[in-house]
Amino acid sequence: MDINNEIAKLDWKREPYGLYEPIEYTLAAGGKRVRPHLAMIASQMFDGKDEDVLPAALALEVFHNFTLLHDDVMDKADVRRGRPTVHVKWNDNTAILSGDQMLIEAYKLLSGVSADKLPKVLKLFNQMATEICEGQQYDVDFETQEQVTIEEYLKMIRLKTSVLLANALQIGAYIAGADEQAQEALYQFGIAAGLAFQIQDDILDVWGNPKTFGKVVGGDISCNKKTFVYLTALHRATQSSTALHHVTQLQQWYSQVLQDNTEKIVAVKTIFEQLEVREACEMMVADYTQKALQILATLPQNAATAQLRQLANKLNTRQD
Amino acid sequence: MDINNEIAKLDWKREPYGLYEPIEYTLAAGGKRVRPHLAMIASQMFDGKDEDVLPAALALEVFHNFTLLHDDVMDKADVRRGRPTVHVKWNDNTAILSGDQMLIEAYKLLSGVSADKLPKVLKLFNQMATEICEGQQYDVDFETQEQVTIEEYLKMIRLKTSVLLANALQIGAYIAGADEQAQEALYQFGIAAGLAFQIQDDILDVWGNPKTFGKVVGGDISCNKKTFVYLTALHRATQSSTALHHVTQLQQWYSQVLQDNTEKIVAVKTIFEQLEVREACEMMVADYTQKALQILATLPQNAATAQLRQLANKLNTRQD
Repeated sequence: MDINNEIAKLDWKREPYGLYEPIEYTLAAGGKRVRPHLAMIASQMFDGKDEDVLPAALALEVFHNFTLLHDDVMDKADVRRGRPTVHVKWNDNTAILSGDQMLIEAYKLLSGVSADKLPKVLKLFNQMATEICEGQQYDVDFETQEQVTIEEYLKMIRLKTSVLLANALQIGAYIAGADEQAQEALYQFGIAAGLAFQIQDDILDVWGNPKTFGKVVGGDISCNKKTFVYLTALHRATQSSTALHHVTQLQQWYSQVLQDNTEKIVAVKTIFEQLEVREACEMMVADYTQKALQILATLPQNAATAQLRQLANKLNTRQD
Repeated sequence: MDINNEIAKLDWKREPYGLYEPIEYTLAAGGKRVRPHLAMIASQMFDGKDEDVLPAALALEVFHNFTLLHDDVMDKADVRRGRPTVHVKWNDNTAILSGDQMLIEAYKLLSGVSADKLPKVLKLFNQMATEICEGQQYDVDFETQEQVTIEEYLKMIRLKTSVLLANALQIGAYIAGADEQAQEALYQFGIAAGLAFQIQDDILDVWGNPKTFGKVVGGDISCNKKTFVYLTALHRATQSSTALHHVTQLQQWYSQVLQDNTEKIVAVKTIFEQLEVREACEMMVADYTQKALQILATLPQNAATAQLRQLANKLNTRQD
């Protein structure tokens, strides 16, 4: 079953057009459709039918796009997937209201889950949606919070990124009839894979190839984002008496908002490299990837499991 | 069962505080809790248990407050129920994200409905939520739309106001085991009562007693809102060849944004009175009230029905 086809089938040619056109625009932007794919793969692992998991898979994708839409308003982001964001193309109010409606549409799609599975799927989905909002709130809080620990950061990205992947896998498995233990294993696979993905994302923001990385390299440094890379650098600098001056240097750079960030990016990268931060972060990605692969080994071995294994193996080598 | 007690029991002392405090603040503002009450009354009409309808009743109240929270951001409203709105007390981003979480909390409460009733309740709730967003979009569209017909206005207030009242009654009745016909009758009662309520609101905005009316009298005139009163005035002026000059006068006043609206309010009120608009609008309120009462007569006659009758009888005499 082709998820993109199924998303294209959703009909948004409805009045009032001002409400539905931004939803159509958002969903037409593409993206990898990772979450519905994960739900499908998890279902296939337990011989579930694609059509049984489809309503939930679509709900997950619409929900994910709702979070991007509202996040872009909050972050004042102008571009998403190479196109103007909704609040730029229309306005803030449209982005708020059409986003609200997208969240409701996610629940409408979810209500297509078979009646016997609906109560648990709704509970899992609600829990996931709550955790994503909590993750977003922590992300906002960290901007003004002076000290963020690595542990706090990991909690934030678990909520903001991993939980949705984990939830997609668990819901797919549950609808296909997998037992509790298998559902939990897939959930934990999603958590580990999501953490590896996000830390690799933080690494690529510093050391990615500008030609293949989808975002501007150094973007997180420019906007003083407390990423896993930055927090690891701070941590390593604090641990070694000979590197303590790096703490002050980093904090100085991260208190500045500059027009031209060229010099800052070079200086910060140099500090990161002196502290061997890249190696430390890559080790974390490898650890989470390893954990994800170990979990997969406890699950039925079939074509679906192989797909997830392939996905996990790409986590620490991906360049975009 | 005391709805205010039940709302106070909801626990919002959760981290991240930045996400949940604005929700607690919003729900603590009070209000008449009309929607959960309606769900309870409808349930009692069919001998339902209060505790069975409680999850849905609370979901309706939390949902209603979510719409107020986001509407206040979109309308840039500074005050709600005598207190600063969330986006004023915190900021726009907080109002967006905590609002999103409130919508999710509504669905979490809804998931407490018994499993056998959940699929239909979720569908009804989703349909209602969608219509409310559509109503809000039409309301926004009307601000810049040159011509709005009375029919279009009625559709907008049906979606924006009536549907939530109607839905509360239908869900309450459904959970209590009422048949389709009774559910539909209660839904239609809610629609008619909601229209009467909103038109009376439009009337009170012009002719209300400043001491008892909760809002600023003349507020809709000041901000050129195309209310039922205004649209009725335009319609009446267009129908009579001797009153055509009032069309131009009204349109001129309604194209102005003024610092001091005293003169404008007096002038517009005078035109309304020359066109006997108040009488025409009050007749519409009486008609919808009558319709609501007629629907009640088709339902079981008990204490709950008496409560709804009392409520309907207040619609056209209320002054606040």
